[in-house]
Amino acid sequence: MVLPGITQIREAIDLELLKFTRARSSELREIDSHLAPVAEALSEFITDGGKRFRPIFAYLGYLGAGSTPNQSALTACAALELVHVCALIHDDVMDGSDSRRNKPALHKQFEELHKMNGYKGDKEKFGVAAAILLGDLALSWSDQMISESGIASQDSSRAAPLFHEMRAELMAGQYLDVLEGSIGEFNLERSRKIARFKSGKYSIERPLQFGAALANDDRELRKVFSDYGLPLGEAFQLRDDILGVFGDSAVTGKPSGDDIREGKRTVLMALTSSRLSAADHLKLVEALGNSNLDNFQVAQIQQLVKDCGALAECEELIEDLLQQALNSLKHPSLDKDVADHLRGMAIAATNRKS
Amino acid sequence: MVLPGITQIREAIDLELLKFTRARSSELREIDSHLAPVAEALSEFITDGGKRFRPIFAYLGYLGAGSTPNQSALTACAALELVHVCALIHDDVMDGSDSRRNKPALHKQFEELHKMNGYKGDKEKFGVAAAILLGDLALSWSDQMISESGIASQDSSRAAPLFHEMRAELMAGQYLDVLEGSIGEFNLERSRKIARFKSGKYSIERPLQFGAALANDDRELRKVFSDYGLPLGEAFQLRDDILGVFGDSAVTGKPSGDDIREGKRTVLMALTSSRLSAADHLKLVEALGNSNLDNFQVAQIQQLVKDCGALAECEELIEDLLQQALNSLKHPSLDKDVADHLRGMAIAATNRKS
Repeated sequence: MVLPGITQIREAIDLELLKFTRARSSELREIDSHLAPVAEALSEFITDGGKRFRPIFAYLGYLGAGSTPNQSALTACAALELVHVCALIHDDVMDGSDSRRNKPALHKQFEELHKMNGYKGDKEKFGVAAAILLGDLALSWSDQMISESGIASQDSSRAAPLFHEMRAELMAGQYLDVLEGSIGEFNLERSRKIARFKSGKYSIERPLQFGAALANDDRELRKVFSDYGLPLGEAFQLRDDILGVFGDSAVTGKPSGDDIREGKRTVLMALTSSRLSAADHLKLVEALGNSNLDNFQVAQIQQLVKDCGALAECEELIEDLLQQALNSLKHPSLDKDVADHLRGMAIAATNRKS
Repeated sequence: MVLPGITQIREAIDLELLKFTRARSSELREIDSHLAPVAEALSEFITDGGKRFRPIFAYLGYLGAGSTPNQSALTACAALELVHVCALIHDDVMDGSDSRRNKPALHKQFEELHKMNGYKGDKEKFGVAAAILLGDLALSWSDQMISESGIASQDSSRAAPLFHEMRAELMAGQYLDVLEGSIGEFNLERSRKIARFKSGKYSIERPLQFGAALANDDRELRKVFSDYGLPLGEAFQLRDDILGVFGDSAVTGKPSGDDIREGKRTVLMALTSSRLSAADHLKLVEALGNSNLDNFQVAQIQQLVKDCGALAECEELIEDLLQQALNSLKHPSLDKDVADHLRGMAIAATNRKS
């Protein structure tokens, strides 16, 4: 088999998402012309950018199980992106984040629509309502896309439980994440658990297993994907933690130091906390969750995280986890060319700048 | 065939929902003990009360197509309730409603959890985040319940498009409803269109057709269910409009006059608006959307709606629509005993007090 390259897979996934979204958008417009902004905003959100990590992992899971490239399987894998679209839209509402990928967050776009049209009532409430509904729609579409992908029913039956687990684990991970911010303690173990659910399971392990289950019932391969996905997911999340504090806003599309202003209790923060003097610890606690921090104050916290050695420790942890993930790929159940792709994905995911 | 009674169907649906929810709850608790409040709140919301209109209609659609009672079909029909649970939870967030069924709304329950545990940060934000995630979880569970119901794959393939349409039309209807409140004009035609989507299609037509599609591919019967569901849905919504203004809070579980305080642009309000003098019209416009209205002010608006004749017109409209719905049931494609049940449901739905 000639394995398609990652870029080729990503482009094919983009195309599937575009086709699906176009069809749904025109249905929305047919229901009512007032739904045009809904169709437009959601289409743009779905088709514009996005790394497509989850669909790519899923399709690699499918190919890794020894299947040849298949359009229906690709479409079913692309559907995982719609779950992620829901998660991002709702996440921005929950966090009160104003921007996403260098553009206003979806609830902000609908706030603007409210303002531009001189609508009555609270524009923020309108924006939030629209974003909640658009996220719900994306989540509903995720099933629809799988259901209409053309995969055989026995394949779909094998993969469905993985899809259900993936979504439940996502919501559970999100709740635990929000809760952790509210408990407001630094707990390394709990932060790592959240990383495991939100990134390891939801973003890597389950997508790979979903794809593999579309292909066959090889339980050993699913275990390989756990061994690859869980450490890699944690490493991915640790990179996210670092980008959330040190990321370049021009590349990430989010203000630099956003995680500090949001007060996220990340693994990086738990590592930092355990290494600070009492005085510096107090500074950190005061800064976390203060949405009014200016750039200078953010820079001070960045310096603390660096100077205490937490940043270096986090980088080392990423390296260790990456090695664990890479070692798992030597398993004989896994197609060798796919293993190469997964190696490349792992390195890219842990070295990214956004 | 001995047709089960409506109460018997409702109890069987309740039991299916209880079994499904228990299994999901224990999975959540296994992920993390901190998910216990999520499992508890969602279980209680799903299993406590609820008229189960959509699952009942769906199962009657199944039986109406000539099928004999079947456990898997019943389970698949019960899953529609989980879509509705998501809609209610998210609706309360969007409306900022504090209570549901005489209990605090879900986001309020999590606000309380935040307070009781002395969590850090904004308790309202925490409540909203939890409610958004719990709604998402319920929506994901709706598929899972269908997928695990045990229905044959060819039956499920026939019914899936109806399920997808039902959810998309719900979200579309909700958005148009929110938008209508923001546009803030009285538009009878638009209000009736929203009623058609939110109640006619989402609550009656699509559930019946979903059930019928689980049974067979009889397109004529689906047409009968449109002829029954669309007028009945509108009548149902008109009853809702009346209850939203005149409902007894002890029965509805919502403060009397809640729709006035929320400023809902309902058909009843459009009818009222077209009948008022300029002075009274101004009173109405000022009251609508004023969340601080006291009981006396609410009573004044109630009086306006009555005195201008809009209430009576709305009651007549309900009666006409009900007759249209009942007439559709004479079709030979429809099982006679099921037609009797649907007649009873139509009368109950348009004469309810909550």
